[in-house]
Amino acid sequence: MSAHIEPVAITQTVLDACEHLDTASLSDALDSLGINGGLPGIVSQVPGTRCVGVAFTVQYEAVDTPRAFKGAANYIDHVPCGAVIVSSNAGRHDCTVWGDIMTHFALANGIKGTVIDGVARDIDTVIRCNYPLFSRGRFMQSAKNRAQLKAVQVPVVIDGVTVRPGDLLVCDGSGCVVIPQQLAAEVVRRAQAVEQTERSIIEAISTGSTLENARSTYRYDQPWLTDAEKVSVGERP
Amino acid sequence: MSAHIEPVAITQTVLDACEHLDTASLSDALDSLGINGGLPGIVSQVPGTRCVGVAFTVQYEAVDTPRAFKGAANYIDHVPCGAVIVSSNAGRHDCTVWGDIMTHFALANGIKGTVIDGVARDIDTVIRCNYPLFSRGRFMQSAKNRAQLKAVQVPVVIDGVTVRPGDLLVCDGSGCVVIPQQLAAEVVRRAQAVEQTERSIIEAISTGSTLENARSTYRYDQPWLTDAEKVSVGERP
Amino acid sequence: MSAHIEPVAITQTVLDACEHLDTASLSDALDSLGINGGLPGIVSQVPGTRCVGVAFTVQYEAVDTPRAFKGAANYIDHVPCGAVIVSSNAGRHDCTVWGDIMTHFALANGIKGTVIDGVARDIDTVIRCNYPLFSRGRFMQSAKNRAQLKAVQVPVVIDGVTVRPGDLLVCDGSGCVVIPQQLAAEVVRRAQAVEQTERSIIEAISTGSTLENARSTYRYDQPWLTDAEKVSVGERP
Repeated sequence: MSAHIEPVAITQTVLDACEHLDTASLSDALDSLGINGGLPGIVSQVPGTRCVGVAFTVQYEAVDTPRAFKGAANYIDHVPCGAVIVSSNAGRHDCTVWGDIMTHFALANGIKGTVIDGVARDIDTVIRCNYPLFSRGRFMQSAKNRAQLKAVQVPVVIDGVTVRPGDLLVCDGSGCVVIPQQLAAEVVRRAQAVEQTERSIIEAISTGSTLENARSTYRYDQPWLTDAEKVSVGERP
Repeated sequence: MSAHIEPVAITQTVLDACEHLDTASLSDALDSLGINGGLPGIVSQVPGTRCVGVAFTVQYEAVDTPRAFKGAANYIDHVPCGAVIVSSNAGRHDCTVWGDIMTHFALANGIKGTVIDGVARDIDTVIRCNYPLFSRGRFMQSAKNRAQLKAVQVPVVIDGVTVRPGDLLVCDGSGCVVIPQQLAAEVVRRAQAVEQTERSIIEAISTGSTLENARSTYRYDQPWLTDAEKVSVGERP
Repeated sequence: MSAHIEPVAITQTVLDACEHLDTASLSDALDSLGINGGLPGIVSQVPGTRCVGVAFTVQYEAVDTPRAFKGAANYIDHVPCGAVIVSSNAGRHDCTVWGDIMTHFALANGIKGTVIDGVARDIDTVIRCNYPLFSRGRFMQSAKNRAQLKAVQVPVVIDGVTVRPGDLLVCDGSGCVVIPQQLAAEVVRRAQAVEQTERSIIEAISTGSTLENARSTYRYDQPWLTDAEKVSVGERP
């Protein structure tokens, strides 16, 4: 994604489609385009939850010398309905950038979920609220005097993967995938083909096929091809 | 906490209050006093459990040369009712210092929970018993011939944070906080103010306030101030 | 286990016995023979599941230069009913070697569980299927073009512990234990004695004994001795 590419809003059709796609299929679709989208080490903190939405990014930086308090979370007033907050705290485990107040605010305002390159607190409340929270871990010490807001809606980098404002985020029990917004429609189209391929394979093995035959038949070498594309490409080499 | 300060028993009132306080509020109260109390990297192993109690500390050391068995867990006979055991095994992941027998003993004897700078075993049993266990992870290899009891009721250091016998421990889904016993009453008083502040903010945002306004009104810059103190200090600068 | 020792099939009696033994008791039995069997850092991804079976080993290696797709998971067609797959991917966290298709295949074909020195994907499906999956973590990026099958049914080494084809695997909430196949019957015999010893101690403390007395009476110094052996060995030194 070079800098001159214009942002393209992600359509509701694409968002709706993602409600039925898992991160594995979307990652396979990204792979077919040569893009790494998985955010390593960031895992679900609330079992059974998933979320889909447009990235609102937040960048924290370390506080060198403690100073007067700044409301480092007040950015949330500006997060639009339908967003997934991506909060970058440099992977720090010693202070949190998410807790119960923000969870209540998010739920009241249509925010879909939160991804943290760092840790969160008030986990018992977050679990009670069944709010989709994804982070490196859990800790209770406040960011106050430890980290401060540097910027919002700027690109953030998590383990080498860049998340830009407006990118598509999908998160489930396997982790978090970021999809560049310009590619969202195409990635979703390919991920749907991946899921169709996988369904066909699962059906075949459930009726006694070997995995090898099922994969060959349904072209697991390129699962993002649609049935029509598979026919036109022909038999597996 | 300098060495000459006399230990002060933690009152039942303080312990009871902590049953209704989460680790985040207590940590904020500690922050207001300039103290780090969170024990990094130690997390709940039994979803939904929490515990409050007075620290009984246990220090393990590595066994250099295997020797005759020593009953390295028999200290538990001397742990008083109401204690939380804080077992320091240098963060080791290769051998455990807690298991099913100790869980049964703890439950039968009013021990409130266990915090391990290391790992625990018999996790399925601990979960079945719903016993509050907090550790760096899970593993099944015994400490026998790997670690041995060095001392009990001595200060132990976990990731730079000192836990002294008699300190107050509160643990929940966000992790474990240690509160110096001399400060326990004051920390609890401040934590109660923090929770009142947070309740006010949550109520305000649930009725449509921005987070920024709610935090300003209810002084999230110093959430440990009581309502009376906030009035006397005046408006937020 | 030197190379010239002939493989000995693990009997159904031994497998059945392991259904009632936890990894802690089996590890204690291995300790009595001077063997480390625990696989460090590999934990249950599906709460409440456990598995027992004979190891089928799979070795992956990194892909240096992306090449034509190879069906790196088709080995599963050759995994016998009753096996536990042990899949070694060098502890990598950036690409997975297990997902939903393999889970469905395993369940349909009597495969007992999967142990991964690495990560797995499609975790929500694996949890829904209640399939015993043990790994270092969770991630969704495919192994395609990142890792490739190097060999099956060869010894694999996980954190210094060797797992050989045909070894006995037992996995539960505390982690995974590998038991050399030649020793399986003896290890099970000793683990049963460990569990009898532990039951006696738990019964004693539940009726008011100190842990020290209970452990001395029931010889926790050598819990793998049967009651008859304890009598013949005499009192605890």
